[in-house]
Amino acid sequence: MGSPSSLKLGVQICGVGYGWGEWRHPDVPADASISLNFYRQQAQLAEAGRLDFLFIADSLHIHEKSNPHYLNRFEPLTLLSALATVTEHIGLVATASVSYTEPFNLARQLASLDHLSGGRAGWNVVTSWLSGTADNFGKAEHPPHRVRYYMAREHLSVVKGLWDSWEDDAFVRDKPSGEFFLPSKLHRLDHNGEFFRVKGPLNIARSPQGQPVIFQGGTSVEGREFAAGHADVVFLNPESLTEAQWRYQDIKGRAACLGRNLQQVQVLANIRPVVGRTASEVEQRYQHICQFITLEDALVTLGRPFNDHDFSRYPLDEPFPDVGDLGREHLQGHSEHIKQVARDEKLTLRQTAWRFALPQREFTGTPEQLADRLEHWFQQGAADGFVINPWPGGLQHFVELVIPELQRRGLFRREYSGHTLRDHLQLSTPINRYAPRRELI
Amino acid sequence: MGSPSSLKLGVQICGVGYGWGEWRHPDVPADASISLNFYRQQAQLAEAGRLDFLFIADSLHIHEKSNPHYLNRFEPLTLLSALATVTEHIGLVATASVSYTEPFNLARQLASLDHLSGGRAGWNVVTSWLSGTADNFGKAEHPPHRVRYYMAREHLSVVKGLWDSWEDDAFVRDKPSGEFFLPSKLHRLDHNGEFFRVKGPLNIARSPQGQPVIFQGGTSVEGREFAAGHADVVFLNPESLTEAQWRYQDIKGRAACLGRNLQQVQVLANIRPVVGRTASEVEQRYQHICQFITLEDALVTLGRPFNDHDFSRYPLDEPFPDVGDLGREHLQGHSEHIKQVARDEKLTLRQTAWRFALPQREFTGTPEQLADRLEHWFQQGAADGFVINPWPGGLQHFVELVIPELQRRGLFRREYSGHTLRDHLQLSTPINRYAPRRELI
Repeated sequence: MGSPSSLKLGVQICGVGYGWGEWRHPDVPADASISLNFYRQQAQLAEAGRLDFLFIADSLHIHEKSNPHYLNRFEPLTLLSALATVTEHIGLVATASVSYTEPFNLARQLASLDHLSGGRAGWNVVTSWLSGTADNFGKAEHPPHRVRYYMAREHLSVVKGLWDSWEDDAFVRDKPSGEFFLPSKLHRLDHNGEFFRVKGPLNIARSPQGQPVIFQGGTSVEGREFAAGHADVVFLNPESLTEAQWRYQDIKGRAACLGRNLQQVQVLANIRPVVGRTASEVEQRYQHICQFITLEDALVTLGRPFNDHDFSRYPLDEPFPDVGDLGREHLQGHSEHIKQVARDEKLTLRQTAWRFALPQREFTGTPEQLADRLEHWFQQGAADGFVINPWPGGLQHFVELVIPELQRRGLFRREYSGHTLRDHLQLSTPINRYAPRRELI
Repeated sequence: MGSPSSLKLGVQICGVGYGWGEWRHPDVPADASISLNFYRQQAQLAEAGRLDFLFIADSLHIHEKSNPHYLNRFEPLTLLSALATVTEHIGLVATASVSYTEPFNLARQLASLDHLSGGRAGWNVVTSWLSGTADNFGKAEHPPHRVRYYMAREHLSVVKGLWDSWEDDAFVRDKPSGEFFLPSKLHRLDHNGEFFRVKGPLNIARSPQGQPVIFQGGTSVEGREFAAGHADVVFLNPESLTEAQWRYQDIKGRAACLGRNLQQVQVLANIRPVVGRTASEVEQRYQHICQFITLEDALVTLGRPFNDHDFSRYPLDEPFPDVGDLGREHLQGHSEHIKQVARDEKLTLRQTAWRFALPQREFTGTPEQLADRLEHWFQQGAADGFVINPWPGGLQHFVELVIPELQRRGLFRREYSGHTLRDHLQLSTPINRYAPRRELI
């Protein structure tokens, strides 16, 4: 276990990149999103940096204007299963949608990954916001935002219930007596709810972590309430220290109201650092990244939380357009945030597009500056840690330059001491709901 | 490519084993079904034997009386993705059900496995026969046998359609020009059928094999008609040379009627060999295996194709009981076959149970005897090859003893010459349905 004062650190690995133009950067293999070599190399680099986990995001609907990474990428659970055998310590976190997966199949694949990896699986619970997704799954309509979170609660509770099908000591496997398992330790879920009906039991033993770690990144009120109530790790996307502190307190406060132990709710901030050995290297890297972001791409990026809305149809140098309720049923929290920033800061459409597309100066600097900033956010109650969303080549810069500085300051581990993702994140193992309560024995 | 006269050989890897008692055999790790080490070791052994593929079977419903392997095993697609990185050549074939998976998710995971493995993925298409499965997926009822095969046809056609979403040369990835893909080579499926409505496109490039290899093992009339029309590889479970020849001709005849090139339909027989260096070692292994098969287990095994029917309630030494239509809506072909054998051979229930539980003498012998038998079946038009369903330790015996003998006779490869599973099986790569026809250019 790390010391209680140490940062949590993860990395999102995202093939050719988050934006539309990053794939053209010389540090990005143009086929990265579909290259096992790329993912293996990045995973091993993250593990060399002793990071807690790597994270694979996902979505289930593409069209001609989707970004290059979305068009052609590995499916997360198969990818992470492959990475499980070429890494030893690092956590493996997959996005999967409650709206378009069967709880039985998903519970099983995540448990299987947890067994294959010796207890390193995590699930980032998403509800899918692009309404076109429904057309890939024969649904009459994409469920509205609020309904998706009702579904999320029920789906997650079914999955967790299935993960408890077998008590931890159910499998005896005694060859002389022929006793393979104890029938009293096998439990059927018999769930019959509003959205799902699942009898169980699951056909795989309780996994090394008891249950894989639950991640969630909702920004809307429903999303935050769901995350605070059910996630072990909450992702945030703050733009400033003040916003981060507000969001951090919001999650922790909601979690406290829901009766949770706050040590068991880790709040992490997504950041996109730009790091260099010297001020001039930093600036050169910053400018180089900017070369791969066009205004056209920035407008498409901006449209994504608004259900891939086409912002190129509005005048660029007038105030951010009034799009009404657009986005409310999709990526609600993000789209509302964009509207609010544009309104508060009186931004034009052009300014708004650039504002959300360019690297932020907050996490741009030398290793010492970056470490100062991370330490400051950590100590000022803005985050329990960070998820690096690297620019091209950025994971290597972070691992080689920033990690040693954090280690020198005693803010991050030098070696893995635990075995599972729960160990790394100092999360306790959930007790099986069917296990006899020790205090009553 | 192998010579056209060479056998095809695969192996089913099945954790603690097919029966109820095999896990007690000293050569079986009692946790094999959930041990990555076991699967890795078996996969590497199969690859050392230059086998065409390894195959992971599956089912989606368990209860207290299910066999030990079914109770607690890896999910096939995650397991095979893990094995993809610890093997280089061998094909990786997963069972997945058309009745309880979304075509979009399954098409994507299989394509992802094909990319991760460099073109080694296969899909054994099953319809799931245990009616209890419906209760794990919120379905009002398990679809009847005939309906499941209608669903299978439509599901498979959707999956194949999604696999063609991108033409092979769709991704240009030209950094200087910024052209990532050619929009003219992206195709939407727009499928709207009786059971599925799927718009597409799939969010992953066409895979190295064009499409993963399709396996099918249906024994009923509907199953055989489906296999003959749509599978690249058909599994059979014949008990004798005569039956194998009949079944082989049945599949090839149906395939010919459906206009298929018979070189592209490989018919393989499932066998459970018992091999030893000498006659006495063979007999000792045979008897040792029999020690782990009890009458009680044999009766449970017998009940499985009849929807886990309880045969222990009938008198053992009277004729095989009249169970009416039981089994017809479940594993129809197998259950009908058992009824017919019991009737034709005038077997009691006890005799029937043993008949289908004990190792068959047909594939029991020394390496020379086994090779003789395999060669004879192959040359007499009973099978294009075999799938080894090993008894405990049996894969090692087969690879060490039988493979060298087959190689010596020129019946099996000494080294892999191709890279993909299609190469190994001498199956051509399907042309993308949207590709311009070369003869017309």
